[in-house]
Amino acid sequence: MIDSIGGITAPSGFQAIGAHVGLRKRKKDLALVWSTVPAHVAASFTTNIVKGASIVWSQYIVEQGQPIRGIIINSGNANSCTGEEGLVHTRMMAETYAACRNVSAEEILVASTGVIGVPLPIDRVKAGIQTIHDALDCSDVAGTAAAEAIMTTDSSIKEFAKTTLIGGKLVTIGGMAKGSGMVHPNMATMLAFITTDINITPELLKKALKESVSQTYNMISVDGDTSTNDMVAVLANGLAGNVLIDEENEDYQKFSKLLHQVNAHFAKAIVKDGEGATKFIEVTVQGTKSLEDAQRLSRTVVSSNLVKTAFFGQEANWGRIIAALGYSGVQFDPQNVSIQFLNKAGSVSLLKSGEPVLIDEMGTAEILKESNIEILIDLHDGQSTATAWGCDLSYDYVRINGSGRT
Amino acid sequence: MIDSIGGITAPSGFQAIGAHVGLRKRKKDLALVWSTVPAHVAASFTTNIVKGASIVWSQYIVEQGQPIRGIIINSGNANSCTGEEGLVHTRMMAETYAACRNVSAEEILVASTGVIGVPLPIDRVKAGIQTIHDALDCSDVAGTAAAEAIMTTDSSIKEFAKTTLIGGKLVTIGGMAKGSGMVHPNMATMLAFITTDINITPELLKKALKESVSQTYNMISVDGDTSTNDMVAVLANGLAGNVLIDEENEDYQKFSKLLHQVNAHFAKAIVKDGEGATKFIEVTVQGTKSLEDAQRLSRTVVSSNLVKTAFFGQEANWGRIIAALGYSGVQFDPQNVSIQFLNKAGSVSLLKSGEPVLIDEMGTAEILKESNIEILIDLHDGQSTATAWGCDLSYDYVRINGSGRT
Repeated sequence: MIDSIGGITAPSGFQAIGAHVGLRKRKKDLALVWSTVPAHVAASFTTNIVKGASIVWSQYIVEQGQPIRGIIINSGNANSCTGEEGLVHTRMMAETYAACRNVSAEEILVASTGVIGVPLPIDRVKAGIQTIHDALDCSDVAGTAAAEAIMTTDSSIKEFAKTTLIGGKLVTIGGMAKGSGMVHPNMATMLAFITTDINITPELLKKALKESVSQTYNMISVDGDTSTNDMVAVLANGLAGNVLIDEENEDYQKFSKLLHQVNAHFAKAIVKDGEGATKFIEVTVQGTKSLEDAQRLSRTVVSSNLVKTAFFGQEANWGRIIAALGYSGVQFDPQNVSIQFLNKAGSVSLLKSGEPVLIDEMGTAEILKESNIEILIDLHDGQSTATAWGCDLSYDYVRINGSGRT
Repeated sequence: MIDSIGGITAPSGFQAIGAHVGLRKRKKDLALVWSTVPAHVAASFTTNIVKGASIVWSQYIVEQGQPIRGIIINSGNANSCTGEEGLVHTRMMAETYAACRNVSAEEILVASTGVIGVPLPIDRVKAGIQTIHDALDCSDVAGTAAAEAIMTTDSSIKEFAKTTLIGGKLVTIGGMAKGSGMVHPNMATMLAFITTDINITPELLKKALKESVSQTYNMISVDGDTSTNDMVAVLANGLAGNVLIDEENEDYQKFSKLLHQVNAHFAKAIVKDGEGATKFIEVTVQGTKSLEDAQRLSRTVVSSNLVKTAFFGQEANWGRIIAALGYSGVQFDPQNVSIQFLNKAGSVSLLKSGEPVLIDEMGTAEILKESNIEILIDLHDGQSTATAWGCDLSYDYVRINGSGRT
């Protein structure tokens, strides 16, 4: 497998565009994605029961199980908690884009991110769609413009693509994502859109996405708050020309692995760019009875405010880590727990089978100075392993989220 | 009911002392509590499965169901994650105190708070007990010294007492507590010790405590992290001379109410003194189908980092509040939700039955400037109500928790 150039337009038959239509000050705020042929779709949505209008619409579309043609995404306004009018506006976005391209509104996904509770300036959005849809193209530049248009306070554009041989054909997966930037006066939203030219049944596309999401986007935490507008969608249009993947064969495994790599890339990129983050923290819990236990334990550690502030302060604070393990809800014997920190500066063992280790303070300080830190926790109680990704909790997190109303 | 002077020594027959024995630098670090007659005990312990040695011991004692005589509490060292040796040390603390007072070790509760994973300097503790136990007395000064000795980085001494007539007799409840101060290099612990001279069966004492804890200490959150050493214990020695309360009669209700007031006082005092807190936030959720739903919703709001930073930044950010309600796990219709902020500066309605309200920015700013803010949330879907208490998330929280290793 090789990293490919570009992002959402890297696979065959996908076009995109991103532009400024007046929802944000000067910044790009509207992105369109287009597949030249109908594409199967699978998606995962926020579990928050307060859902933005775009989530309600896109969930409905995905549940129909029919192929789709495009995605429209706006930043600058989440169109969430906007009542019936919000739903009408989302539908208008889909209808306007669909009319421009001679397809039905039911072939268009919609996503929104930005301020909650403010009506969407729908006229600007409609005019914007009509103006920019002609510029849709499959260039890398267009893909990057789209990736830029879905950003809120993200500090970097997030796009990525990978290519590999599947069934003798070159298959590409590309995508773009946005992470947690606060949009005045509201909240972080995570969006990821993945395109691929692979030929696969909708059922297996759904299965592959579901498995991958549980190990990637569901394993990251910036601040434990779940947005009303989170969405991950993957479109597969079959243009790679590989033999249809309709069972869990070797081709499926290859695709699954590729998809996981792309999603893991975005999940990590999102936490690295977490609000105020100065450290990227990777927590692996191994030796648990079940995968679920390992996932729960690693997520709890990576979500703990006390653990996060300790890493911001470059403290080797294993006490907070074992306390977080202890309140995770998973049963284990504290006497069996080992905790290790490692990265390119070295590795240090802090707790071995429940016994504190006298640590080399200098070596530990070197490890904690680095911006990437891996925490390896072993419960010595089974064969399962899971990894969660997070970031530290810094003054800047408080500044960014405490100073929205200026 | 009247607020009484003093704290843990306010009820008849309770003595205390607090002193410096060498676990902390210069600060008081050892407290003893004594009942001149055997006292029934009820207690609640941390749900963290990683438990400090004192929790293991005290849980064992309370489960025996026998009356006890005293409590010994040290600060400066949590005696947690210290293996078999830690358990031996805790037992030695109980034995030493018991030997000085001619009772059995099984009549002594032990609590510890402070650094995790460092062996307790048991010789200093033993010598300390032998030196100070003679000074036990029932004065307010002695009670205050004990309350001071259980503090870690608490910025204020927490003691309180209330007196009322029950069954024609004056009954007093007193107590002391400590909240969330970080102790190098580790974590916050919440401790509360309540004494009362009421005459009550151990079963009803237990019931009253359990009900009260669920509505007080279990409804506060500083940072969502649960310590390995949390403990709340209540001792009742019967010296008030009221007719034994052995059924849920009017006397029981009166006692229950009094106990709740004392516990609510300490719970609020703990969050007001939360690490770095600049605001005290009271979240009441009403109109829910069950008490459990109301408790879960109010706790989720008060624990959200995004809500907490918004209050630090004095933002009227109802979007983050409704998003937190939405991920709480409780089912409700967002279209029915109303959200209101209020305090002595006034009140402002932000959301009415799911519709954003155009707010008076100036009036809202006045409310948000105050250090106490009440959030009233109505789901219009039932008769249950619950209140949770918390604090904002400030730069100082990050500073205090990110700079322990100096």
